Amino acid sequence: MSDAGAVGIGVPTVYGMSASGNCYKVRLLLEQLGRDYRWIEVDSSRGQTRTPEYLARNANGKVPLLELDDGRRLAESNAILCFLAEGSALLPADAWRRAQVLQWLFFEQYSHEPYVAVARFICGWLPADHPRRAELPRLRERAHHALALMERELAARDFMVDGGYSVADIALYAYTHDAPRGGVDLDGYPALRAWIARVEATPGFVPLRVELP
Amino acid sequence: MSDAGAVGIGVPTVYGMSASGNCYKVRLLLEQLGRDYRWIEVDSSRGQTRTPEYLARNANGKVPLLELDDGRRLAESNAILCFLAEGSALLPADAWRRAQVLQWLFFEQYSHEPYVAVARFICGWLPADHPRRAELPRLRERAHHALALMERELAARDFMVDGGYSVADIALYAYTHDAPRGGVDLDGYPALRAWIARVEATPGFVPLRVELP
Repeated sequence: MSDAGAVGIGVPTVYGMSASGNCYKVRLLLEQLGRDYRWIEVDSSRGQTRTPEYLARNANGKVPLLELDDGRRLAESNAILCFLAEGSALLPADAWRRAQVLQWLFFEQYSHEPYVAVARFICGWLPADHPRRAELPRLRERAHHALALMERELAARDFMVDGGYSVADIALYAYTHDAPRGGVDLDGYPALRAWIARVEATPGFVPLRVELP
Repeated sequence: MSDAGAVGIGVPTVYGMSASGNCYKVRLLLEQLGRDYRWIEVDSSRGQTRTPEYLARNANGKVPLLELDDGRRLAESNAILCFLAEGSALLPADAWRRAQVLQWLFFEQYSHEPYVAVARFICGWLPADHPRRAELPRLRERAHHALALMERELAARDFMVDGGYSVADIALYAYTHDAPRGGVDLDGYPALRAWIARVEATPGFVPLRVELP
């Protein structure tokens, strides 16, 4: 895309785990903005976010983490998206559209990711006999509640917020398209599946890379 | 405070439950901005967010919900804070400070509220023999992890983000100051307790109103 997003920040470094949807959000945005960046792989599933070195960077022990050339650091995937997209078409300047983008970003972190992403993690990264599998029925029920809300919105518009593709779509696409890995089927959501295809057709789109353990 | 935040939106209506920290955030901000607003009490603990009438307003069945004079609606407490605070000192114009405000708002909804607020809800609103009390040890452990991160930040600065009081403080104050109601003691967090006193001394501060069932 032609607009470059946040300016004057040099070449940022992303600490991330490639298979994580939260980290993929940041990579997808940087690619679509055509920005240079460094990527340092940190495998949270193998404890690499709990080392003293990593906790000194992010005391909350999570990826992704954005680090600027001058050492300033920013955590929380959706805050990173907003910071990097500022000034580009992916974060609307219009106050109401911007508010709606934020509404969907908070929805994603509170009502979507804790179910869709956690079901995916349990199925994809934990052993088949792990006790956390007992959480799956409730997680899948709540995941479907979130997807049904998205379906309702996407039956009425092409992207999550009127005005076109935005960081709200990036944030929600990240785990939604891979929900079946957590046993959350997308067959009942035709508008959502059409939106997934539209996101994947945006300029500069790159897919999530998952290498299972 | 003298700066008025979002302009040109008339007199908004807030659908909210007074005892909810998420709803209180919006009330505290509107009071501190000196804005007129209407408040419609919706008691989510008694099913009032699950009625057909309310679900037609917010399909996600949550409070708070902001409704403008022209019928436009915005959900998600922290998105509402950003929308209303735009243009005021409570949402910094500086890109990096704004990014840090968003970082703490997402932290609040992902790593703080699901533990601090849920422990408070179980202790304050559910019967003493309710099976969800089994969740309390884990919730309190995660709550203390979130509070320890805040303590670390607040040992180094007066408010969550350099530059002064912001919506990040409003969002985090809402449940933090009432954490003891969920059995999450604040005695071990001197910097955090000093910050609570600073928030309560800001111009136009109004306290949370809790009437237990």
